[in-house]
Amino acid sequence: MSEREQELGITESKEENIGEWYAEVVQKAGLADYAPMSGFIVTRPRGYALWEHLQTHLDAMFKATEVENAYFPVLIPESYLEREKEILEGFDPEVAWVTHGGEEELEERLAVRPTSESIIAPFMAKWIRSHRDLPHRVNQWCSVIRWEATETKPFFRTKEFLWQEGHTAHASQAGAMEETLLRLEQYTKIYEDYLGLPVLRGRKPDHDKFPGAETTTTVEVLMPDGRSVQGGTSHYLGQTFAEAFDITYVDEAEEEAVAHTTSWGLSWRALGALILAHSDDQGFIAPPPIAPTQVAIVPIWQEDTRDAVLGYAESIADDLEKAGIRLELDDRDERNPGFKFNEHELNGVPLRAEIGPNEAEAGEVTLVHRTDRESVVVDRDEIVEAVQTELDTVYDELYERAAKHLEAGINEATDTDEVINIIDERGGYVTTAWCGDPDCETPVKDAVAADIVMVPLEADSEPLDDTCFNCGAAAQTTAYFAKTY
Amino acid sequence: MSEREQELGITESKEENIGEWYAEVVQKAGLADYAPMSGFIVTRPRGYALWEHLQTHLDAMFKATEVENAYFPVLIPESYLEREKEILEGFDPEVAWVTHGGEEELEERLAVRPTSESIIAPFMAKWIRSHRDLPHRVNQWCSVIRWEATETKPFFRTKEFLWQEGHTAHASQAGAMEETLLRLEQYTKIYEDYLGLPVLRGRKPDHDKFPGAETTTTVEVLMPDGRSVQGGTSHYLGQTFAEAFDITYVDEAEEEAVAHTTSWGLSWRALGALILAHSDDQGFIAPPPIAPTQVAIVPIWQEDTRDAVLGYAESIADDLEKAGIRLELDDRDERNPGFKFNEHELNGVPLRAEIGPNEAEAGEVTLVHRTDRESVVVDRDEIVEAVQTELDTVYDELYERAAKHLEAGINEATDTDEVINIIDERGGYVTTAWCGDPDCETPVKDAVAADIVMVPLEADSEPLDDTCFNCGAAAQTTAYFAKTY
Repeated sequence: MSEREQELGITESKEENIGEWYAEVVQKAGLADYAPMSGFIVTRPRGYALWEHLQTHLDAMFKATEVENAYFPVLIPESYLEREKEILEGFDPEVAWVTHGGEEELEERLAVRPTSESIIAPFMAKWIRSHRDLPHRVNQWCSVIRWEATETKPFFRTKEFLWQEGHTAHASQAGAMEETLLRLEQYTKIYEDYLGLPVLRGRKPDHDKFPGAETTTTVEVLMPDGRSVQGGTSHYLGQTFAEAFDITYVDEAEEEAVAHTTSWGLSWRALGALILAHSDDQGFIAPPPIAPTQVAIVPIWQEDTRDAVLGYAESIADDLEKAGIRLELDDRDERNPGFKFNEHELNGVPLRAEIGPNEAEAGEVTLVHRTDRESVVVDRDEIVEAVQTELDTVYDELYERAAKHLEAGINEATDTDEVINIIDERGGYVTTAWCGDPDCETPVKDAVAADIVMVPLEADSEPLDDTCFNCGAAAQTTAYFAKTY
Repeated sequence: MSEREQELGITESKEENIGEWYAEVVQKAGLADYAPMSGFIVTRPRGYALWEHLQTHLDAMFKATEVENAYFPVLIPESYLEREKEILEGFDPEVAWVTHGGEEELEERLAVRPTSESIIAPFMAKWIRSHRDLPHRVNQWCSVIRWEATETKPFFRTKEFLWQEGHTAHASQAGAMEETLLRLEQYTKIYEDYLGLPVLRGRKPDHDKFPGAETTTTVEVLMPDGRSVQGGTSHYLGQTFAEAFDITYVDEAEEEAVAHTTSWGLSWRALGALILAHSDDQGFIAPPPIAPTQVAIVPIWQEDTRDAVLGYAESIADDLEKAGIRLELDDRDERNPGFKFNEHELNGVPLRAEIGPNEAEAGEVTLVHRTDRESVVVDRDEIVEAVQTELDTVYDELYERAAKHLEAGINEATDTDEVINIIDERGGYVTTAWCGDPDCETPVKDAVAADIVMVPLEADSEPLDDTCFNCGAAAQTTAYFAKTY
């Protein structure tokens, strides 16, 4: 390997130093760069394309289920946030404050939105009059800022991040709860059908709910280092917000009634999860459904075969393009095939098509999986179906690998020591019977910095044991302990 | 008309009070609401859907011409903006300043981006190494803030607005100039093929260019009140930015060379232009290509015909939906057809399908144009083609109306008094021979607050006369005077 290639390639090991390796993959695969201000990143085209494809799929699910997009101001008056803080114990986000407009000091500080409940709720109150206006659903795709002082980790920990936030109002608790679970289902579908990541679905324990929420549901994704990522949350907010912001309506009996509301959000942390989970020491691996480039066609020629090979490659590219497959025909003269292979592997292209004089003559194409470098030779006449099949195979490989990891990563414990030991030695999720008292989480937190990331979704599900793993009191539910990002 | 209906409908007249009328259309058609902070609006689903459709079409044009999307931070350090201000005479935007993060005062103030040249250029400098990296093109869809203290006019004058900003670097001046004109061409296409608005293309006079630009090209749109809207601008920036931010590359002769750059932007002002141009005293009229709802199907039934009519309407809705036509089947029991007609007219739905027992029996559908209320009876079996044809007809009507207005709105003048008189009496564009000295604009500006909004695109185009309309010196070009938004 030349010096230049070494500089281009990944030098850290996922096995040995996952943190440095992740940072290297993100930068060298051209997904993101660090911005000059600590906590901010620049999302480069390859990284942003992942977000665009995720957005396309999730937005289509939203729109198929009666969600409309809107756009609310990026700045929120301090008094609006204060109102939310008064209502919601525990709601006190660190925000970026705008104090000056042009040369002048503002009469009231404005926060760059950390989340938009406090500005959306008053408008919902204005727009909703009758039971006929319900359910009311609005979503926005935007960036938010949380001024938390932590080390920057692209897509996982950044002061500014991209997300969507959905906000809905309903006539009944049942309607709002159904909504909450529908969005959780859609988040699950995004992870499992598009990002190649199986998830666990659950509820946050009461002491870790979104401030003001009755129920916070979550999808949790297990990372290779045994930590859990909160992949998206969907909240049933009860009537807390509706009461505080006067989201009322005239019901069928002509009586004034208070709505039930929900909110739900998924951020670009989903990108962090898939990069961390799927990539390897050669670089990034993009799940085919959201891959910016799905197939890299690398023609391999000598001087005398150049025209024939390139013409053959172009006709194949045409067919694939017409079928809607995202491809790059890498016809650069100044690079040899080996260099191109490495570069497309680094950049995460899930499938490579190698086309040399032999292939051109035989009417064949060699397709190589990014995941395991296995290759199959396919018929040129069936190239579209073959590429689709092999992309599916790569997807299944990614998914299966993650599913096996998840399966092996859920282990049961009966007492505090065992919880601690498993977390410490193997990581992953440790399930155990729990009384529901947050104090029983503390010894585990103190010993290995793991939290209860979720409990089963069904409130009435049977705990694993009769008594709490820590205090021995009657168990109420099963706790899932894990370290988190 | 009942009181309730009056409250719902437009009460102002476009002819008599266009400003109040516009504000009423925007709000009552559910396009936008005023936010609590002066200068900010809330873009409601119907307004945002217009933006989404515009975005879909323009983004597809960009992507078909090698543009990649990316995302840069919403906050920009003051020193970065200062650097741009030092380089660019006249660049001194009023911005919103973030001075505190959480409880702490920041060491350096951060501006909410007013435009992103100063944060994008340094990254371009980093990413571009060789002539092989050129042309380099990046675009972002985002919101920006300009803290200009003006009266709020939704989509026209708001402190925060949505836009796209494209930034490119090229090896040659010719390449960069070609890029500048390609983007101007795409903006023209958006207005003329999707928004129903013919435009004038031109260059800004030198004294009104974007700071630092060699050439600022513009599409100008004539409004019903005779004012011109700057509908989008595309700048050839020469080497000013590249020199200041070190956007250099190694050329084919292995020499270091300075790039030529461009930038181009189109904002939601385009929505303001189309709302103002097309709507009438019944409310909004959406151009079909970007209409949130293209067809409102209103079934008209008596109790005994309800099932038959509704079943027939549903089968038609199915066919249209499969063909990708955006529709609403308005089957509300609690509203009569007249109310529904008014509501869909107010909301700008370009085509209404009336379906009563007669239509159901005869296998027909009555289609009514939003523009002139003309109706055509079409065959149910050819409903998809018929709807597409009538949507095209509505589009053509909107376009033709605007084109006639534009044609009548360009008038020639030979001296200062005549320029002033035409602007004052008829508005629109007044063309006249101009020496190029900004001082000659002043008397017109002082008298009727009109500016030179553009000069012809071709630098060598013949002026209308030999001598300047104002000073009598040799004319260099033709000036287009107009009042502006």
